[in-house]
Amino acid sequence: MSFLSDDFLLSTSVAQNLFHSCAKGRPIVDFHNHLCAREIAEDVRFDNLAQVWLGADHYKWRAMRSNGIDESLCTGNGQWNDKFTAWVNTLAQAQGNPLYLWAHLELKRYFGIETLLTPETAVDIYQHTSSLLQAPDFSARNLLRKMNVSVLCTTDDPCDDLRYHTVLRESDFEIRVLPTFRPDKAFNITAPLLYQEWLQRLGSAANVAISSIDTLMEALVHRMDAFDAAGCRCADHSLEPPLFCDNARDLVGPVFKKASDGQPIDMRERSILQTAVLLELGREYHRRGWVWQLHAGALRNVRTRLHSAAGADAGGDIIDDAHIIRPLASLLNALDTVNSLPKTVLYNLNPRDNEALMALVGAFADGSSPGKISWGPAWWFMDQCSGMERHLNTLSQLGLLGQFIGMTTDSRSLLSFPRHELFRRVLCGWIGKQVTAGLFPDDEKMLDELVSSLCSINALSYFNY
Amino acid sequence: MSFLSDDFLLSTSVAQNLFHSCAKGRPIVDFHNHLCAREIAEDVRFDNLAQVWLGADHYKWRAMRSNGIDESLCTGNGQWNDKFTAWVNTLAQAQGNPLYLWAHLELKRYFGIETLLTPETAVDIYQHTSSLLQAPDFSARNLLRKMNVSVLCTTDDPCDDLRYHTVLRESDFEIRVLPTFRPDKAFNITAPLLYQEWLQRLGSAANVAISSIDTLMEALVHRMDAFDAAGCRCADHSLEPPLFCDNARDLVGPVFKKASDGQPIDMRERSILQTAVLLELGREYHRRGWVWQLHAGALRNVRTRLHSAAGADAGGDIIDDAHIIRPLASLLNALDTVNSLPKTVLYNLNPRDNEALMALVGAFADGSSPGKISWGPAWWFMDQCSGMERHLNTLSQLGLLGQFIGMTTDSRSLLSFPRHELFRRVLCGWIGKQVTAGLFPDDEKMLDELVSSLCSINALSYFNY
Amino acid sequence: MSFLSDDFLLSTSVAQNLFHSCAKGRPIVDFHNHLCAREIAEDVRFDNLAQVWLGADHYKWRAMRSNGIDESLCTGNGQWNDKFTAWVNTLAQAQGNPLYLWAHLELKRYFGIETLLTPETAVDIYQHTSSLLQAPDFSARNLLRKMNVSVLCTTDDPCDDLRYHTVLRESDFEIRVLPTFRPDKAFNITAPLLYQEWLQRLGSAANVAISSIDTLMEALVHRMDAFDAAGCRCADHSLEPPLFCDNARDLVGPVFKKASDGQPIDMRERSILQTAVLLELGREYHRRGWVWQLHAGALRNVRTRLHSAAGADAGGDIIDDAHIIRPLASLLNALDTVNSLPKTVLYNLNPRDNEALMALVGAFADGSSPGKISWGPAWWFMDQCSGMERHLNTLSQLGLLGQFIGMTTDSRSLLSFPRHELFRRVLCGWIGKQVTAGLFPDDEKMLDELVSSLCSINALSYFNY
Repeated sequence: MSFLSDDFLLSTSVAQNLFHSCAKGRPIVDFHNHLCAREIAEDVRFDNLAQVWLGADHYKWRAMRSNGIDESLCTGNGQWNDKFTAWVNTLAQAQGNPLYLWAHLELKRYFGIETLLTPETAVDIYQHTSSLLQAPDFSARNLLRKMNVSVLCTTDDPCDDLRYHTVLRESDFEIRVLPTFRPDKAFNITAPLLYQEWLQRLGSAANVAISSIDTLMEALVHRMDAFDAAGCRCADHSLEPPLFCDNARDLVGPVFKKASDGQPIDMRERSILQTAVLLELGREYHRRGWVWQLHAGALRNVRTRLHSAAGADAGGDIIDDAHIIRPLASLLNALDTVNSLPKTVLYNLNPRDNEALMALVGAFADGSSPGKISWGPAWWFMDQCSGMERHLNTLSQLGLLGQFIGMTTDSRSLLSFPRHELFRRVLCGWIGKQVTAGLFPDDEKMLDELVSSLCSINALSYFNY
Repeated sequence: MSFLSDDFLLSTSVAQNLFHSCAKGRPIVDFHNHLCAREIAEDVRFDNLAQVWLGADHYKWRAMRSNGIDESLCTGNGQWNDKFTAWVNTLAQAQGNPLYLWAHLELKRYFGIETLLTPETAVDIYQHTSSLLQAPDFSARNLLRKMNVSVLCTTDDPCDDLRYHTVLRESDFEIRVLPTFRPDKAFNITAPLLYQEWLQRLGSAANVAISSIDTLMEALVHRMDAFDAAGCRCADHSLEPPLFCDNARDLVGPVFKKASDGQPIDMRERSILQTAVLLELGREYHRRGWVWQLHAGALRNVRTRLHSAAGADAGGDIIDDAHIIRPLASLLNALDTVNSLPKTVLYNLNPRDNEALMALVGAFADGSSPGKISWGPAWWFMDQCSGMERHLNTLSQLGLLGQFIGMTTDSRSLLSFPRHELFRRVLCGWIGKQVTAGLFPDDEKMLDELVSSLCSINALSYFNY
Repeated sequence: MSFLSDDFLLSTSVAQNLFHSCAKGRPIVDFHNHLCAREIAEDVRFDNLAQVWLGADHYKWRAMRSNGIDESLCTGNGQWNDKFTAWVNTLAQAQGNPLYLWAHLELKRYFGIETLLTPETAVDIYQHTSSLLQAPDFSARNLLRKMNVSVLCTTDDPCDDLRYHTVLRESDFEIRVLPTFRPDKAFNITAPLLYQEWLQRLGSAANVAISSIDTLMEALVHRMDAFDAAGCRCADHSLEPPLFCDNARDLVGPVFKKASDGQPIDMRERSILQTAVLLELGREYHRRGWVWQLHAGALRNVRTRLHSAAGADAGGDIIDDAHIIRPLASLLNALDTVNSLPKTVLYNLNPRDNEALMALVGAFADGSSPGKISWGPAWWFMDQCSGMERHLNTLSQLGLLGQFIGMTTDSRSLLSFPRHELFRRVLCGWIGKQVTAGLFPDDEKMLDELVSSLCSINALSYFNY
């Protein structure tokens, strides 16, 4: 099969039929990403492909550094066209990396480019795509329309005034752009003084004087109300290890005082603060019928020189190998015990934990609603074809495939929506293989329903959009 | 290939030949399960399929809760037919789950039903199977006969008087039903007062006044003698973490006193008790030539509300991600050092530990007998087609495939024996793929011997039946 | 496909073309093994196949013990032909184990033997190979020539005077045999008195009186100079857990004193010593432009009886399941922070850590050179066909496939070079599958370049040979 041809990843006729007649046309519900609401509200256009591709993508920066490219051409102040050249040289070493597929699929789907991106074709492609990007047809909103996006959920700090989400809601833009409540800064303290400053900003946003855990919660609850009014149905957290601490509520008072005074706190204290705040937040989410998404398993900013030079989210995060199962079980159980566990989407970052996490998901199902606890899609370092296939295997073996909420991009780029196509191809290809092995019934209606559910129907209903 | 057709999972002609001409006809040696000896002794019959399927199966309860089914229809006092309906609705979401294959394979192999079990067919299938189940041909013993079971080993508390095993031995029932010595309650204390009560019962059963570790061991040894006389050749343990504690023998005195007085003990104390008792038991097993099976890696009863409402083994157990390698190595080494390590079957529950566990197995082989230390088959959360294939891969790569003791159901249901068929299909399918890749010789005699060994011959010889 | 036929592991025509026209003919660069420079320098010949196969191979000993073979026929003083018989009986149980492929591939490639090695053919094969081995055409050097070896790197203690490497360099032997600096004994203390003795020997070799960490480093630096002069471009370490300790430099003084006085030190102290020495060594390697290879994840000598009877490297080592990511990140970061991190090749032993290790590799790429930090090939317990394929998957998904440095044997046997053929087949087979799925471009020139790079070109350039 030729590269990215119509039937790539679809090795059986069952898979081909499912993809082309059912999966391909489904709208996209992207329930977690890091897109910029302002860019969509203002319907911005881009100058060139390097800007879109290399402006904020730590996946690509990492790959470039691995290829010996200097930091000036990654996060630095190099010229866009030089950065593009460096990136293309790197791509030539990256067969098998999702970046290789994503790049070429984006060229095909957005720009109609069928040639390989190589050092030989780089200049032509750069010029051609840049001229297209500057045209109205390639504005932020039109990029989303091209991909048949129906709903997308950004990730927003509680201090955010959501003005751009309001603009979008009041505009005639047909794609729903919803905020997600991401209060990580309430407990994830990366530098002492930043916490003080953030509390200040939150207090202003909520019009609450924050001097204690109780007033911190009061401010967060105010912001939740505002987010809810703006269409938010979901919170999102990155959980830093240690993920849980016993008796956190009893211990948190002095820890909060210390942190809010701008003093450094140690890892155990951070865990106390994180646990105490999460337990309060969980009850609030449950009360509102919100979903919370918990992302566990990253170890961040491990290379100090890079962090100093380029800040967070620059490619210095890795996959942790710490224990996650007991602390997550303790967190869920603490809320379940008081009947206040919200609908929960759990994400792991180390694929070795897939099975254990999925078994945990099964234990906390409480019969109150389908998929009350769900395993999120293959995320970040797991978001490749075989990572998604491995995820489908484990999810189906230890849970209910039919309840899977499907794919999300978790992306910072407006061009990343073909990742949904990849997921759908992997899904249909995998189902085709099950049918061929005699493990799934070859029942067209049943398979169509299954695929439709996993492409978008389940997500729409799970998040209550 | 159509769903569960004659050649499902058998994608090569080598695989098809091996399965149909060799594997399919081999008797079943089910060396570890949780069947009820009384039901077999009394040759009971069942009223309906829901009773057999949903009476004790925590796999199914978990799946149903994940589908939003209320507890009353899982472990609760709902009507059997309502439970059945709820289960069928759940099954419709469970493609890829072993439950999906098991259900349909059981319908085919026991009841001759070829149609899919769906909400549309549920009532007919329920009525048809129920009327069959009530007939003599579907009594407990006849269900076992239908599957060509040759030996099965139940799991029994040392306090058990084994009366039903005696009845079976003295009857003309041609299938051997043997007890397995499972003294977990000697160290796995789930509630303080229960331990006192259990010691009382054990003391009565053994006619020993238990007041110390020494008298506890004396009582256990008495019961081992009784089990041995009843045909038992095997002990079984679920090891709770922490799996090993140094110097346990020196420390166990006061811990036992505390526990036997009905006082709560903490995790470290439980580990001391567990280690001390296991080391004594290991020596006794070794002396008798028994095999011990060690199941490591479960984290039990993590959802307090469920445990309170429905008790243990109700679906609240998960896969732990704790370290298991060093403590298991320490346990084996402590016995090996004094030349008292029994034949050992190790089971892990987290598939990420497959390779490390199999490497451990290889290090403790001491040349005294083939498979002195063995890796048990893919168990519980690992017991799916791809879990079994992954197990075969790792076992063959890091050990001796030809010594593998094969499959066991670990099941609580009399209908679960088609899982041996699944294992045999996976085995033959996997061998066929190796041959096709040019990695195994295409030598019919050699492959037939290999398959026969893994289907039942190795188990018969390993356990000395 | 018949067993080990021309196209085994090559299921597509793309794979077949790549292997036969490109991979097969590439020279071998074996950048890490445990071959004996003396045997090559003296161009020794062997008496029989048992001597070559069973003289030092703990893989085979483990397998034999698992088959119930007594120690006298493994590491003991049994007769070679009896050992051979015992080994052949074991091999008959070992389908799927790399030993099975290696044995038959070695028989084919070195001796032209096409028949299976079985109890029936054992005597003939033993006699035939033994008579060949005694002939000049099968001397140590000719065995290497047969496999088209171009460079090989042994593993050498700093105390080694490298006399055989010198002999080889000054001879007309066309294959480069280079030493590797392996100073594990500077910190990995297996018995108190051995450390004292080793320091003594190192002091003599370097002509330095070692009385402190500083003088220890002075001695090691002297030996590095000697190794460098002998063509060494690489250091190698086996890292024992705990892999890293904070503030090791501040703490190491008294620990070194204790250890050098022949007193036992505990695990934490060993970690202090290891960390402190590694950090100093890393700076020195960086200064010289050497590569260091770090092997993490083994747990050694877990079976005391075996260790007492047969010593280290006898089959008593296993795969650890300890945490490795944070300590490795700390080690790399400590050197990166002072801009002294050498080119680094990381190896893990537990395949469950593949993804996390590869993510770590990506975070420490600093743009200074391609592959500055590299993931070493699938090693030891991971060195099977599917282990290598899994490695390729993860490496390509999380990094740059085009920068992979390729295969090394890590072997103690002169007959082990067909493992490179296996790697190349796995590589070509895997690429063929990617192309067939439409995930790689079917571009012959690009694929040829990729395969050539991974067979030998990258290793040559990475290690600067």
